[in-house]
Amino acid sequence: MERAIAGGIISSYYRKLQDCLEVDVAVVGAGPSGLLCAWDLARAGKKVAVFERALRPGGGIWGGAMLLNEVALQQEMRPVLDEAGVRCLPAGDGLLTADAVELAAALIYQAVHAGARLFNGVCVEDVIFKDDRVCGVVINWSTVLDANLPVDPLMIGARCVLDAGGHDAHLTERIARKAGVRLDTPTGSVMGERPMWAERGEQATLDNSGPVLPGLYVAGMAANGVRGSFRMGPIFGGMLRSGRKVARLILEELG
Amino acid sequence: MERAIAGGIISSYYRKLQDCLEVDVAVVGAGPSGLLCAWDLARAGKKVAVFERALRPGGGIWGGAMLLNEVALQQEMRPVLDEAGVRCLPAGDGLLTADAVELAAALIYQAVHAGARLFNGVCVEDVIFKDDRVCGVVINWSTVLDANLPVDPLMIGARCVLDAGGHDAHLTERIARKAGVRLDTPTGSVMGERPMWAERGEQATLDNSGPVLPGLYVAGMAANGVRGSFRMGPIFGGMLRSGRKVARLILEELG
Amino acid sequence: MERAIAGGIISSYYRKLQDCLEVDVAVVGAGPSGLLCAWDLARAGKKVAVFERALRPGGGIWGGAMLLNEVALQQEMRPVLDEAGVRCLPAGDGLLTADAVELAAALIYQAVHAGARLFNGVCVEDVIFKDDRVCGVVINWSTVLDANLPVDPLMIGARCVLDAGGHDAHLTERIARKAGVRLDTPTGSVMGERPMWAERGEQATLDNSGPVLPGLYVAGMAANGVRGSFRMGPIFGGMLRSGRKVARLILEELG
Amino acid sequence: MERAIAGGIISSYYRKLQDCLEVDVAVVGAGPSGLLCAWDLARAGKKVAVFERALRPGGGIWGGAMLLNEVALQQEMRPVLDEAGVRCLPAGDGLLTADAVELAAALIYQAVHAGARLFNGVCVEDVIFKDDRVCGVVINWSTVLDANLPVDPLMIGARCVLDAGGHDAHLTERIARKAGVRLDTPTGSVMGERPMWAERGEQATLDNSGPVLPGLYVAGMAANGVRGSFRMGPIFGGMLRSGRKVARLILEELG
Amino acid sequence: MERAIAGGIISSYYRKLQDCLEVDVAVVGAGPSGLLCAWDLARAGKKVAVFERALRPGGGIWGGAMLLNEVALQQEMRPVLDEAGVRCLPAGDGLLTADAVELAAALIYQAVHAGARLFNGVCVEDVIFKDDRVCGVVINWSTVLDANLPVDPLMIGARCVLDAGGHDAHLTERIARKAGVRLDTPTGSVMGERPMWAERGEQATLDNSGPVLPGLYVAGMAANGVRGSFRMGPIFGGMLRSGRKVARLILEELG
Amino acid sequence: MERAIAGGIISSYYRKLQDCLEVDVAVVGAGPSGLLCAWDLARAGKKVAVFERALRPGGGIWGGAMLLNEVALQQEMRPVLDEAGVRCLPAGDGLLTADAVELAAALIYQAVHAGARLFNGVCVEDVIFKDDRVCGVVINWSTVLDANLPVDPLMIGARCVLDAGGHDAHLTERIARKAGVRLDTPTGSVMGERPMWAERGEQATLDNSGPVLPGLYVAGMAANGVRGSFRMGPIFGGMLRSGRKVARLILEELG
Amino acid sequence: MERAIAGGIISSYYRKLQDCLEVDVAVVGAGPSGLLCAWDLARAGKKVAVFERALRPGGGIWGGAMLLNEVALQQEMRPVLDEAGVRCLPAGDGLLTADAVELAAALIYQAVHAGARLFNGVCVEDVIFKDDRVCGVVINWSTVLDANLPVDPLMIGARCVLDAGGHDAHLTERIARKAGVRLDTPTGSVMGERPMWAERGEQATLDNSGPVLPGLYVAGMAANGVRGSFRMGPIFGGMLRSGRKVARLILEELG
Amino acid sequence: MERAIAGGIISSYYRKLQDCLEVDVAVVGAGPSGLLCAWDLARAGKKVAVFERALRPGGGIWGGAMLLNEVALQQEMRPVLDEAGVRCLPAGDGLLTADAVELAAALIYQAVHAGARLFNGVCVEDVIFKDDRVCGVVINWSTVLDANLPVDPLMIGARCVLDAGGHDAHLTERIARKAGVRLDTPTGSVMGERPMWAERGEQATLDNSGPVLPGLYVAGMAANGVRGSFRMGPIFGGMLRSGRKVARLILEELG
Repeated sequence: MERAIAGGIISSYYRKLQDCLEVDVAVVGAGPSGLLCAWDLARAGKKVAVFERALRPGGGIWGGAMLLNEVALQQEMRPVLDEAGVRCLPAGDGLLTADAVELAAALIYQAVHAGARLFNGVCVEDVIFKDDRVCGVVINWSTVLDANLPVDPLMIGARCVLDAGGHDAHLTERIARKAGVRLDTPTGSVMGERPMWAERGEQATLDNSGPVLPGLYVAGMAANGVRGSFRMGPIFGGMLRSGRKVARLILEELG
Repeated sequence: MERAIAGGIISSYYRKLQDCLEVDVAVVGAGPSGLLCAWDLARAGKKVAVFERALRPGGGIWGGAMLLNEVALQQEMRPVLDEAGVRCLPAGDGLLTADAVELAAALIYQAVHAGARLFNGVCVEDVIFKDDRVCGVVINWSTVLDANLPVDPLMIGARCVLDAGGHDAHLTERIARKAGVRLDTPTGSVMGERPMWAERGEQATLDNSGPVLPGLYVAGMAANGVRGSFRMGPIFGGMLRSGRKVARLILEELG
Repeated sequence: MERAIAGGIISSYYRKLQDCLEVDVAVVGAGPSGLLCAWDLARAGKKVAVFERALRPGGGIWGGAMLLNEVALQQEMRPVLDEAGVRCLPAGDGLLTADAVELAAALIYQAVHAGARLFNGVCVEDVIFKDDRVCGVVINWSTVLDANLPVDPLMIGARCVLDAGGHDAHLTERIARKAGVRLDTPTGSVMGERPMWAERGEQATLDNSGPVLPGLYVAGMAANGVRGSFRMGPIFGGMLRSGRKVARLILEELG
Repeated sequence: MERAIAGGIISSYYRKLQDCLEVDVAVVGAGPSGLLCAWDLARAGKKVAVFERALRPGGGIWGGAMLLNEVALQQEMRPVLDEAGVRCLPAGDGLLTADAVELAAALIYQAVHAGARLFNGVCVEDVIFKDDRVCGVVINWSTVLDANLPVDPLMIGARCVLDAGGHDAHLTERIARKAGVRLDTPTGSVMGERPMWAERGEQATLDNSGPVLPGLYVAGMAANGVRGSFRMGPIFGGMLRSGRKVARLILEELG
Repeated sequence: MERAIAGGIISSYYRKLQDCLEVDVAVVGAGPSGLLCAWDLARAGKKVAVFERALRPGGGIWGGAMLLNEVALQQEMRPVLDEAGVRCLPAGDGLLTADAVELAAALIYQAVHAGARLFNGVCVEDVIFKDDRVCGVVINWSTVLDANLPVDPLMIGARCVLDAGGHDAHLTERIARKAGVRLDTPTGSVMGERPMWAERGEQATLDNSGPVLPGLYVAGMAANGVRGSFRMGPIFGGMLRSGRKVARLILEELG
Repeated sequence: MERAIAGGIISSYYRKLQDCLEVDVAVVGAGPSGLLCAWDLARAGKKVAVFERALRPGGGIWGGAMLLNEVALQQEMRPVLDEAGVRCLPAGDGLLTADAVELAAALIYQAVHAGARLFNGVCVEDVIFKDDRVCGVVINWSTVLDANLPVDPLMIGARCVLDAGGHDAHLTERIARKAGVRLDTPTGSVMGERPMWAERGEQATLDNSGPVLPGLYVAGMAANGVRGSFRMGPIFGGMLRSGRKVARLILEELG
Repeated sequence: MERAIAGGIISSYYRKLQDCLEVDVAVVGAGPSGLLCAWDLARAGKKVAVFERALRPGGGIWGGAMLLNEVALQQEMRPVLDEAGVRCLPAGDGLLTADAVELAAALIYQAVHAGARLFNGVCVEDVIFKDDRVCGVVINWSTVLDANLPVDPLMIGARCVLDAGGHDAHLTERIARKAGVRLDTPTGSVMGERPMWAERGEQATLDNSGPVLPGLYVAGMAANGVRGSFRMGPIFGGMLRSGRKVARLILEELG
Repeated sequence: MERAIAGGIISSYYRKLQDCLEVDVAVVGAGPSGLLCAWDLARAGKKVAVFERALRPGGGIWGGAMLLNEVALQQEMRPVLDEAGVRCLPAGDGLLTADAVELAAALIYQAVHAGARLFNGVCVEDVIFKDDRVCGVVINWSTVLDANLPVDPLMIGARCVLDAGGHDAHLTERIARKAGVRLDTPTGSVMGERPMWAERGEQATLDNSGPVLPGLYVAGMAANGVRGSFRMGPIFGGMLRSGRKVARLILEELG
C-alpha cells in the first residue's frame, strides 16, 4: 500500500507541476487580493498558478486584528462574502464583521476549487525578464532559502505576473532594482507605504492596483507600497476590490 | 472609520470568546481528525471550540507528502470528499488523490461554517481536572509561550476535551504525567507510536480513537501515539474516520 | 470558579479597551518621562492610554547604572520624589540618590492609580495620520511582532500622541520617513543623539521636549534623539522635567 | 557632574550590598507571594533581601491572563488591596478584578518602601548549605548566566531562605538533588504541580506554603510545585495569602 | 529555453524517483561505508538508493582530521584506492595518506556512476516495519525537518535497509525504541560507542558490520555504536572494509 | 597506531600547505566554473590552490533545481561531460540532463586528481594588494569566522586570483570597496546581477568572464554579478565554458 | 614578507604539534588548577600539553565574583602568589584579595614560560582507552564542534591525563559512561557537586584531587564534581592546592 | 567564611572602581597595542584604566594565525619581548616567532602588574564630549549590552582616551558620526582599512597612530581603519610599536 500511496502522490504532483510550467498568470502571494484575483481568473478559464512562501496560504487574514480573529468589511462587500459562502454580522457605521478563519478558508477553497493551482511552501525569488517584459517567475522551496542552501531554482513561464506579496512589495522592489527599469508610478520607482488613514487607504488600494511594468501587476498592500499610498486597517474591502480589479485588467490584456 | 473598525472587531471577538467560556467540546488541534470531528459535532448542534497552536489551522494537510501538495485517500472516503466539496482523481489500487490545499481549506471552512469556533494562535497548555475528570482546557497565546513570558492563561470549561494534537499526543502525555492517573490503554500510560505500516496504521487509527480518561478523548495520530500503534503514511482515510468516530462517541456521551 | 475568573477578567479588559479606542493622549513608552507625563495628564482629568512594548513597564529606570540599582537626581527634584513617595539620600554636589526599584514602581503606580491606562506588551507600530496631523496610534502585541507573524493591528484614536520611546526616537523617525513630512527641528528631520555631556544633556532634554509635528510630541531621550542634543547620564532630573513640561504643553493644547 | 553621578551611585549601591551580605531573610523571586512576604517581614523590622532574575520585578502579575492585563481576586482579599492602595471592582461570584499593572507596581513599591532591598537582574544559582541547613544564597548576574560565562558568584548569608520562584520550584528541586536530602513533603522529594483546579489550587497554595528543609521555605506556585498540588488560575488570593502566611511562620522562627 | 530546462529536469527526476519507489537496498547515509557498499551493490546489478541528510554527500571524509584534509589508510587498502582512482603516499608504520577531498569525490562518483541513485538533502525519519521486518524507509526533505514543518513523508520500499548513518546509529536506535524489538547484539539493544582504540576499532568495525534485525543492516561507525565497540581514529580501512563486507552479506541474502 | 595516524596526517598536510604558500593561481570558490578552471590549469602544469568556504566543495551543483537533483546542459557540452566521465540523457530542445551528484563529484575529483589542491572549510576574507595589483589571498577557517572569533588569518601568495565565488561576487565587491579602485567593467564598479534570461545569461556568463583588475579574474555567476548581466537558470553550459575560458586567459597571462 | 610570516608561523606550529603527539601529561582545561599543575610539571621537566576549549585560557579566574574582578585567597597561599609575581592585599579573616586579571595572566604566563604547551581553541572530545587505561586524548577544534561539522579528530598519546575541566567534570563523566568502568569514588561513578560550603569545599577540593581511573586524574572543581563534595566560593586556595597536589602525585607515578 | 570572601572582594573592587572614576588615560581595548601602551603609561606613573569588552583580555593575540597559535615579529622587536619575558625563535627573513599564548599572557600581566587597572567584560558604548573635546568614556557591562537590556551606563572621566579597539575603529567612527566633528585624517572622517600589504601595513600602523580629535588617540588596527591604510598580517611589530608611540605622545601631552 505504501508504494501505491507514494506513486499516486508523485504522479499527481508531477502532472500538476508539468502542466504549470507555462501559465497565463502567475500570482505571487496567497493573501486576500491574490486569492480573489486567482479565483476570478480561474473562473474565467485562465490557467493560474499561485505561489505562496508559507506552508499555509491565507496571508494576514487568519489573525484578524491583534489575534482577535474577526475582520471588518464594508457593507458593499456583502455580495463577495455571499459568493464565497461566508457569514457576516452588521457592526455599525456601514461595516460588517466576519470570522477571520472562515473568510481565509473560503477564499483559499474557492480559488483552488475553481481551478487555480496553489503551490505553497514555494518562494518566488526572481522573475524571468526578457526584452523589458516580465514573462515568468523563478521559484524555490521556502525551506531551502530559509536554510541558505545554494540550490538552483526552477522557472515558470507566465504571460502576466501579479505581485500580491504584501506590505513592502519586495518582489517589485527587487525587480526594479535588479533590472534597473522605470516603474509606472509617479516617481518611476517604488515609493513606500505611508502611515495609516483607513478611508484613504481603502480607496488608494483600489486605485493603485494595476500594471507597473510590462507583464507585471501589483495588487493589495503591495500596490500601496509601490505607489506610496496610505496604509489600511484590518478591513478587507480594499484588498478584495483590488484583487477583483486586477483580475479584470489582466483578462482585458490576455483577451 | 478606524474607530468603527476597531470597535466592531473587538465587540465581535468579545462575544465569541465570552460565549465559549463554557462549551460542550473543546477540540485541541485543527488537523484533519480534529476538524472533521468539530464539523460533525457542530452540525449536530453542539457548542464546539477548536484551539490551534499555529496561526493557520489545517495541521499537516497543506504540505501533502514532502511538499508535493497532493494527498491520497481510500476510495471509500469519496463521500466525505463530496460532502466537503473536494475534487479527487483515481490513483489505482483503490486510492484517490486530491489537492492538499483544497482539502485543508474545505475542512476548515466546513467546520467553522457549521458553527464551530476556531481559536488560532492559541495553545492549550494544561487542562482543568476536577474529581479525576478532565473538564476544561487552559489556554494561552502561542506567541506568549514561544517568547517564554510569565503570563497567566485563561480557562475554558468543557464537558469533553478531544486531544487531536498529532504524533506525540503531548497533551495527553502531559495530563497523565501531571495528574498521575491511569489512562485507558493496554499499559495504562502513553505507549508511543510504532514505525510505519500503512494498512495497519489506517485501521489502528480508527480503532484507537476514543476516550482515554473521563472527559478526555484522543483522535488521529494522537490516538496512535497514546496506544502504541503503527504510523500511517500520507493517506487520510484513517484520520478522517477517526474524527468522525470520536464525534459519534462524544455525541453518545453528551446525549 | 474558573468560569467566573475568566469571565471577570475578559469583561474588565473589554471595558478598558473599548473605553480607550478614543483617548485624549496616547503615550508611547512607559519610561520616566512617559510615566510622569501620563500621571500629570491623568491627574488633570484627561483620558490617557500608555502603550509599552515590554511586558513590564518602567523602561530604563530599574537597572540603575550598570545594574547597580540606584539612580541619581538633582536636589531640586526632591518635590517630585516626595509627591511619588520615594525616599532619597544626599550624595554630594547637589545630587540625591534613590533606589531605582522604588522609583520605577512608584512612577508606574502613581500614573495608573491616577487613572491612566497602561497597555503593556503592546507595541505601537505606526500612527494614524490624516490631513498632515497625527491623530492616533496603530498597535499590536509585541510578541506577535517579535514572532514576525502577519497579523493586522488595531487602531487607537488620540487627540495627541507622545513619543516617549527612548534613545533613538524610532517612532518619530518612522513617521517622518513614511509620511515624508518636515519635523519642527532645526534641520526638519531627525537629527540623532550626540555623545554624553551630563549638564548640557539635562538642560537639552527639557528644552527639546515639545511638539515636532501637528499632533505629535516628543519627551525624554527621544526628544534629544530628534533634536540632536547631548546624551544624559543615569540622572533623572531632565527626564522627569521633560515629562512634566510636555504634560503642561499638551494640557494647553487640549484646553 | 558625571563624576558626582557615578560616585554617588556606586557608593549608595556599595553600602546597600555590603549591608545585605548577612540578612535575616533572602527571598528568591519577586512575584506576588515573594513581594507580600518581603513587605510583611520588612514592616516587622527584619532585614530582607529579594533576588529577582529578571531586570524588572513583579513576576507573572503584569500580564494578567493572556495579556488581558486584569487580575481576579477573592472578595476577602479586599483589605490587602486597600493596604496596598490598589483599586478594584466587583466581578460577580465573590470575585474582584483589579488592574494588573497597578497591583504589580503597588506590591513592588510597598515592599521596597517598607525597607526590603530588591536586587533585580540577579539570579540565585545555588544555596549555602551547612550542617544540613540552608543558610544563604549564591548569586550571580542573570546576564552572566544567560551568556554562559564562567564567572564565579557572590554569597549572601541568610537566617532563612524563601523559594518564591514560581511554577517549577527550580531552586528547591536543585537543592534537593544536589544535597541529596529529604524534603518535608509527603514523598520526601519534589512532587510536581498537578493540572488546574482553581478552588483547590487556591487552598492548596495556602496549605502548602511553609518550610521544606531547615532554613528553606516555599511559597506561591513553588509551594504547589514542591508538594504536588493543583494549579491555580489567574487569581491571586492564594498567592498573596501564601506570602503572608510564610512571613508569619518566618517571624515565629526568627523571633 | 527556461521551459525546456525546467521540463527536462522535472521529467528526469520524476523518472528517477518513480523508479526508486521499490529498491533492492536503501542505504541511509553517504559516508565512506555507505558509499562503498552502494558502489559494490550497484556494480553487482542491484537497484540501490542512497539517502543522505546533507545537501552534499561524503559524510566525515572531506574534513580529514581537524580540517587538515588528509586521511590515513592501512597499506592493504591500496587496491580499493586504485580501483577508485585515488592517489596515495606511504606514511610509515604500514600506513598511507591520501587527499581527503580526492577520496570523498571519488567514492561518491564511483557509486553514482555505477548506477546507485543518491538522494541528497533527504532524511530518513522512520522505517516501514511489517511483520517484524524492516521493509522500507520513510523519507522527507531535511530542510522541512530542520524547519519543524508538519509535512508528511514519502515511503520507499526496500528489500534491505542499511544504516550507515554514523556515530550514534540514530536510525537503528529509533527503530529499536519505537518498535520495541530485540536487536541482534549481545544485549539485544543499542549499546553505544566506547572511547577510542584505533586498532581495536578498526577490527571491530569490520566484525560488527552486518544484520541487526530482519531487513536491517548496520555498517561503519553505526555498527560500532550499535554493538558497543571502540571508536576508530581518522583512518578509513575499517570503514571501507565494513561497507564491502555488508555489500557481500546483502548480496548473499538477496541472491 | 594513533600516533602514526596523527603524525602521518599532520605531515602530509604540512607539506601540502607549505607547498601552497606561493601558487600560480588561487581559485576562490569550488563551484562548477572554479572547478573546471582549476582542472584545466592543473592539467596545464600550473600550481593551483582552490579555497572553498564550505566543508564540502561543489557549490550549487549538488541540489539540481529545487532539490530535484538533475541538471541541464546544452548538447555542445557533451565533450566536457565525456572528459569528466559523466553520463547524460537527451532532454529535447538541444538539451541534455545529467545526475547532479555525479557531475559535482566528477568535477571535484578531476580537479584534485589532476593536481589542484583544494582547501575546504577555508574562507578567503581579503586579498594581498600591492602596487595596485592583487597578488594573493588572505585565508581563515570558515568556522572561526562564523564564530566571530578574533583570530588572525594566513596569507597565500598568488600570481593570479580567480573570484569564482557565485552570485554576488562578494570578494570582488569587497576588494573594489576596500581598495577604492576602478574595475574593468562598463561602470568601473560592481554592477549587480539582472533578473533571469536563460539564453542571454548563458552567453553573458561566457562574455563577462575575464580580468577585472590586475591580477584578479572573475568567472561563473560572479562574472555576471560584476558586469551586470542576466541570471542563468539551472543549466551549466555557461558556467563550464566560463571556467574553461578563464583558464585559457590565465594561461596566456602566466605564459 | 607575507610568505615569510606565513611560513614561519606554520613551521613553528608544526614542530610544536608534532612534538606533542606523545606527551607525559595531557591537561584538559586551563583554569587555575590545570595551570598550576602544568606549571609544576613543566618545571619538573615533564612534557606537558594543556588543551583549552576556549580561545582564551584562564577559565573562571578573569571574572572574579559577579564580574567584580578581584579574587580571594587564604593567607597561606601567599607563597604561590609571590612565586607567580602576583600582588595581594590583606582582606581580614585570614584572607587576601588579588586582582583577578593579574592572577589569570600570571598563571598562564608561568605555565607556558616554564615549557608547557597550551593548545587553545581545542576541545578534548574523547580519550584513548586501551586495556582499561586512559592513555591519551582525542582533540578537535572547538569551532568545528560548535558548528556541528562532521570532521574527524586528532589523537594525542599521554602517559597521564588530568581532567581539570571545571564544575561538571564532563570528560570524566563521559569516559565513565562510554567505557562502562568503575571510577575510584565512594559510589564507583560520578557523584555530582553539592551546594556551597566554602570551608568544606576548600578542603574537599584538596582531598578529592587525585586518580579516578588508571591514567586519569581529576583536579579543581572537577574533583568535587566527581566525588560529590561541597562547592567552593570565589576563593582560590583549594583550586591552587589541588593543582599542586595532583602535579606531585603524577610526578610520583611517572617517576 | 562566605561573608569574609564576599566582603573582601566587594571592598577591593569598590576601591578600585572609585579610584578610577577620574583617570589620566582610558584605554579602550586590551589587544597588543592597548596593552603595551597601558604598560608604558603605568610604568611612567600615570593612572590608567583599560576597558575590554570580552571577559578575557588579549584581543587577537591568542589565536596566532588560523588558530596555529604562534605569532611572527620583526627581529628589532626582540627587546620588547625580552622586557616582557617572552621567548622567541628566529624564523628567517629577519623574523622571529613566539608562542601566541605566552605573548598574550605576558602583555596582560605586565600591564596590570605595572599598575594599570583592567576592567574586563566592560564595553565602552560612548564617550563624554565637552566643548569639542573627548574627556571620558561611558561604560556598561558587555553582557547587559549583548542582552539588549535598557540599563544606563556609568561614566569615567579621563584626560585622554585611546581607541585601541581593532579593525573597524568602531568607537572613533561612532564619535565622529554622533558628534558630527572633523577628525584629524586626510579626509576628515573615518577612511576604512585597505586590503593587506604586510610591509606597508606595518609602517602605516606606526605612522597612523596618534591623535584624531582633541582628547582622542587611535592605535593599532584602529589607527589603520581610521586613516585608510593597508592591513597587516599576523605580525605584531607594528602593533607593539604603535602602542609604544602613542604612550609617548600621551605622556608628552599630559606632561
